[in-house]
Amino acid sequence: MSYTKINSKHINQLISIVGIDYVLFDEESIDKYSHDETEDFKFFPEVVVLPRTPEEISTILKMCNNEKIPLTPRGAGTGLSGGALPVNNGILLSMERFNQILEVDERNLQATVEPGVITQVFQEAVKEKGLFYPPDPASKGSCFIGGNIAENSGGPKAVKYGVTKDYVLNLEVVLPNGEIIWTGANVLKNSTGYNLTQLIIGSEGTLGIVTKAVFRLLPYPKFDLLMLVPFFSAEEACEAVADIFKAGVIPSGMEFMERDALVWGSNHLGDNSITIPENIQAHLLIEVDGNDMDVLYKDCEIINTVLENYNCDEILFANDATQKDKLWKIRRVVGEAVKTKSIYKEEDTVVPRAELPKLLKAVKRIGVEYGFKSVCYGHAGDGNLHVNIIKDKMSDDAWNNELPKAIREIFSLCVELKGTVSGEHGIGLVQKGYMDIPFNQTMINLQKDIKNLFDPNDILNPNKIFL
Amino acid sequence: MSYTKINSKHINQLISIVGIDYVLFDEESIDKYSHDETEDFKFFPEVVVLPRTPEEISTILKMCNNEKIPLTPRGAGTGLSGGALPVNNGILLSMERFNQILEVDERNLQATVEPGVITQVFQEAVKEKGLFYPPDPASKGSCFIGGNIAENSGGPKAVKYGVTKDYVLNLEVVLPNGEIIWTGANVLKNSTGYNLTQLIIGSEGTLGIVTKAVFRLLPYPKFDLLMLVPFFSAEEACEAVADIFKAGVIPSGMEFMERDALVWGSNHLGDNSITIPENIQAHLLIEVDGNDMDVLYKDCEIINTVLENYNCDEILFANDATQKDKLWKIRRVVGEAVKTKSIYKEEDTVVPRAELPKLLKAVKRIGVEYGFKSVCYGHAGDGNLHVNIIKDKMSDDAWNNELPKAIREIFSLCVELKGTVSGEHGIGLVQKGYMDIPFNQTMINLQKDIKNLFDPNDILNPNKIFL
Repeated sequence: MSYTKINSKHINQLISIVGIDYVLFDEESIDKYSHDETEDFKFFPEVVVLPRTPEEISTILKMCNNEKIPLTPRGAGTGLSGGALPVNNGILLSMERFNQILEVDERNLQATVEPGVITQVFQEAVKEKGLFYPPDPASKGSCFIGGNIAENSGGPKAVKYGVTKDYVLNLEVVLPNGEIIWTGANVLKNSTGYNLTQLIIGSEGTLGIVTKAVFRLLPYPKFDLLMLVPFFSAEEACEAVADIFKAGVIPSGMEFMERDALVWGSNHLGDNSITIPENIQAHLLIEVDGNDMDVLYKDCEIINTVLENYNCDEILFANDATQKDKLWKIRRVVGEAVKTKSIYKEEDTVVPRAELPKLLKAVKRIGVEYGFKSVCYGHAGDGNLHVNIIKDKMSDDAWNNELPKAIREIFSLCVELKGTVSGEHGIGLVQKGYMDIPFNQTMINLQKDIKNLFDPNDILNPNKIFL
Repeated sequence: MSYTKINSKHINQLISIVGIDYVLFDEESIDKYSHDETEDFKFFPEVVVLPRTPEEISTILKMCNNEKIPLTPRGAGTGLSGGALPVNNGILLSMERFNQILEVDERNLQATVEPGVITQVFQEAVKEKGLFYPPDPASKGSCFIGGNIAENSGGPKAVKYGVTKDYVLNLEVVLPNGEIIWTGANVLKNSTGYNLTQLIIGSEGTLGIVTKAVFRLLPYPKFDLLMLVPFFSAEEACEAVADIFKAGVIPSGMEFMERDALVWGSNHLGDNSITIPENIQAHLLIEVDGNDMDVLYKDCEIINTVLENYNCDEILFANDATQKDKLWKIRRVVGEAVKTKSIYKEEDTVVPRAELPKLLKAVKRIGVEYGFKSVCYGHAGDGNLHVNIIKDKMSDDAWNNELPKAIREIFSLCVELKGTVSGEHGIGLVQKGYMDIPFNQTMINLQKDIKNLFDPNDILNPNKIFL
């Protein structure tokens, strides 16, 4: 596919659609739209457009279709798989002006939101009314809810409460041809036609541009308890995870951190209040929540009883909001900490949770074989392990040519264990070479056919998800 | 589209694929496959085939594609929208031999099941291991789990636990062209490609034939409490529903029954142990469940406090398992009871739950206007109201020509209230004339295009969902 380059006629058209203040093409303004949080990639758009209405987006997409101009939609640019990178240049469509919470419906426990609202801002707005929007990716303080929809983001609370897709009831979407649809209805049950809501969620901005989302909400749980459990063996920490669920407790957080993850995270925050004995290899950060403190204490007792079968050091109970915040902050900052320490690649592996020990063991074995160090952490309750591969002293040749084989081995194991290659970061640009591992050719072709059906000119976020 | 009639060559081909015992074409054997539970429809297939493996289905579908023979897949035939009716005759493909629970994975709280397993059989099998599969349509004792997937079935527990779609992790599907795919992975979080799992769920057997399903399960809740609350006003009963959620309680069942629903249900079971005072217009059947009895009592107290604001009669607490069973049995049998009393049409309306009073009021007003009686009941917690329109003394002319206008008014109101035309029964054959109410033409065309992409020869369950 060869695309048309942006010329001054296009710029003028864009200006006439969104106004002169919202079309950026000087190098300085464009720079921040050239990268996201994925490794060290940079791709420059030819022009950045900041629309305000679905109708403006519709007009822009019609222009792109007529002229064969590639368009890449972008939320806050916190993605970890390169979904928002304008790899074919063209137009970068920033959703940052779609930043309104349109309604919080307390009668129906629902909210209607524009996609450029920051996830945490949305969470806090509904919390003020006693309501709870659970999905909370580590980047919640800066990511957009629209990006969460595009990537089907998860986060620590997913283990009890599910991921973004479990909260979306209905979407307003501008299709690549410029037409506008609502995919569903604002109801909890729906058997009316095909579920295009769920087809759009996780489609990484390749099938349409979400311009409004209706979410279901929950009553905000009144209490929570948090504990940090040190293990002498990282594999044992992983083994304990499935046992806790089997004992009948569903924690609201069940995070795994290898020793280095906790150390690097703490150091990154300049926090040395947590001392980690030499022989501790990993931690589980376990949270329970609910409306009854007695029940939470009982849950903790059950968890303790399970942990007695494992070789743990002394458990740290967070004894107030400050300490809870600190522990969560360390957990959330690990990704950033790794990033500042070294060039790295983050693999978003996911397996059924009881297979986690096998996965961790294999990652370390493959690391030894290929000569890389990894720092692993993630949402153990969901079997979602973020494997951070550290470049450190690895040669460029090994990094570029050998490492992909190692990653392929890791992903192949995930699929053997009935898991897959991305739990919550998406395929985007960087993982598309691995799509043949979870899917047979029929399944890949079917997905490509769907893309082609929505976007026959391949103008919307091209060269993502599929090779 | 003109289809090929079945001839003896086709019959011989089918026999060679599945064996002579599993190809039925005598009138007597075929009769039971000519109808489901939708009104009084009958459509006769030319031949009934009972395959046992995905590969057999694949071969049959390839034959259908080559020869342009329509094929209608069928579960247990308990559907209420005519999805399993072979309206173009041709082949009826019964999934009844896909009746094995292949694995209950206690380590990962998952199960792999064939689609011809009866829902209740599946529920009981996992319950034996302390696990819980919540979706429980009224027909759970006879319906197949595959039919539940096709229609995205709900049931009373959906209000707390969600519907069928919320439990399916992965599907093995034979596509109309005979190719076989797995749609996802056996994991709780998945951001790997398009969500074809959710596209297949609720597609009513028009996009592919599910041959295996992987479900997530929960720990079985240890306790539940059930209460029956009589209201002097049906609208007030509906109003109380949203208030209970706003008070922070999420019941595991929140069923609404108009007076007649409860009376007809009781009578149908020959049970007259529940006396209903003359001036009682409706009941709410409210269940709470969980692992701590004290919490459940507290939940009931909160519910009681909310109900003090309403004009209720004395609340009946079910005091043992027998009484609970009886109350749920009455609730489940209402549909059947209505069916034996009169020719009827059941409309599966759904709105955001706080809009239920408006919906009920409008149904009654429209009934007066068009001269029909209705019996309403359903899953109030989800805003899912089953409107049973009773033919009784209505003329055939009014029934056939005027009533559709009344139904259109009801559905239009649902959509105005941000709801839609089917909560859990599907569109199938009988509701497809109303698809223009929730969806604009773009959205309808997009869905038709997806159907065409999967099934270009329109051989799989043709003439369903879309006009």
